[in-house]
Amino acid sequence: MMEKEVEGYLLKEEGAAFPKKAIVACQGVQGAYSQITAKRLFPEGTFIYFNNFAAVVKAVREGMCEYGVLPIENNTYGSVKAVYQLLDGGDFHIVRGYRLKIDHQLLAKEGTKLGDITTIYSHEQALGQCGEFLHSLGRGVKAVPYYNTAISARHAAESSDPYCAAIASPECADIYGLKILRRHIADNDQNFTRFLCIASRKVVYPGADRISIILTLPHRPGALAHVLSKFAERNINLLKIESSPIAGRDFEFEFYLDIEASVRDRGTREMLAELKEDCPTFQYLGNYQELS
Amino acid sequence: MMEKEVEGYLLKEEGAAFPKKAIVACQGVQGAYSQITAKRLFPEGTFIYFNNFAAVVKAVREGMCEYGVLPIENNTYGSVKAVYQLLDGGDFHIVRGYRLKIDHQLLAKEGTKLGDITTIYSHEQALGQCGEFLHSLGRGVKAVPYYNTAISARHAAESSDPYCAAIASPECADIYGLKILRRHIADNDQNFTRFLCIASRKVVYPGADRISIILTLPHRPGALAHVLSKFAERNINLLKIESSPIAGRDFEFEFYLDIEASVRDRGTREMLAELKEDCPTFQYLGNYQELS
Repeated sequence: MMEKEVEGYLLKEEGAAFPKKAIVACQGVQGAYSQITAKRLFPEGTFIYFNNFAAVVKAVREGMCEYGVLPIENNTYGSVKAVYQLLDGGDFHIVRGYRLKIDHQLLAKEGTKLGDITTIYSHEQALGQCGEFLHSLGRGVKAVPYYNTAISARHAAESSDPYCAAIASPECADIYGLKILRRHIADNDQNFTRFLCIASRKVVYPGADRISIILTLPHRPGALAHVLSKFAERNINLLKIESSPIAGRDFEFEFYLDIEASVRDRGTREMLAELKEDCPTFQYLGNYQELS
Repeated sequence: MMEKEVEGYLLKEEGAAFPKKAIVACQGVQGAYSQITAKRLFPEGTFIYFNNFAAVVKAVREGMCEYGVLPIENNTYGSVKAVYQLLDGGDFHIVRGYRLKIDHQLLAKEGTKLGDITTIYSHEQALGQCGEFLHSLGRGVKAVPYYNTAISARHAAESSDPYCAAIASPECADIYGLKILRRHIADNDQNFTRFLCIASRKVVYPGADRISIILTLPHRPGALAHVLSKFAERNINLLKIESSPIAGRDFEFEFYLDIEASVRDRGTREMLAELKEDCPTFQYLGNYQELS
């Protein structure tokens, strides 16, 4: 027996390994940060690329892919609310997290020198994150926002203009046959994005120590303090909290919470059951380990 | 006497009106959502445009502009962490908030018909927000991410290609001499952005009922519950809460909090003083009214 069911949670047995090989849905194209993460989680995985987050979720829900990889939060740009909104729909669970260090590089065609570059393509956020480097190149170099970092690299590779470059991951240099002209060009070297790996079953792997939930509370003083005191009573650390206004309803919020706990622990399961009872809406998103 | 100082807060007298006329720093260009907000807050204002958020803050800090307008949060894309990081620097205070409904339109040159359009420029987020409309146009129409919505409108106006269009605010149609081809094209009509108006003095206008603070807490169970219970004891509603990881320090967070309270109330001032005493770091950002 590889897993046992306890109150609806499918607990993988001690020693059960996370799969290395699987069919995995990613947003974007080869070389995008989502795919780099997917490759780290599933070193022997087969990756299927989708245009948007909703398509990734649909592929997992409908069984076309066993797993899906989605960005959830960046330390500079905040939470990806669109992904939270998709997760709130249920039918799938977070089985693993990954904290990826984002490390931008300047990529160009073989033979092109830094002084030759006239145009640099990248995702708008990546251009913003490399502001000091771009500024140092002077006014002669134009920074152009483009679909995403990997598509920018492909564009630089396919363009007939030898003087264009892209800001993207080092992996994109290999994939698109480009050369790394400058490494580590972000202003801040503490740039990371958290990704989630979802599956359609409520599976919990050994080592899972983070639980993500979404809940709503009555809008009255003390409602949130009451929930947090439940965590404190059980000595549970809070790893994330975020209120999010509910569209069309003034002063009503959803809360995104991550806590340091495991559903293998009976007390935690009881607490989650209490929250489900007490809160107007409550969604358990998963219990997982976050790697980096 | 127009204002009195109480424990460092400059309380404007009852009846004191928010200025209609001022020199106001905005990010972006004419027609951008920041400038639309600035115009609603200061109907007779003079607006000076800057390239980035840091330049807006600098203009206010150094006295070049009396006020600055900055986006702080969108209900789909979340908080603008870069702005929080600037506000955390101190030296200026939030004096007003504004919740702007974002209402995207398709703009093109006079005479151009919807069926003629081949390329649509806009900020990536705006393109994302109008996904269903863009999809309905079919594969022949290319959506191109561009610097921001207002620059996209200017580009559509100045381009020699009569078949390009832009997604931008209705104000941009007037400013850049374009025609509104389609109104209200966002998938979700509940799209709003919160903006803040900052000034260099710690001024509180009558009607201010929202206080924004940034604080850090020791990473131990119950630390946040303890802070929230202080609000609950005083019957103070929480309007926003968000944890933000501190770069380079694992499992340490800053918290962005908005509460429904006024520093005209002695109990509130005492509570803020207590928090300042108890928290490793504490920053009062301002006490203000949020209009919409």
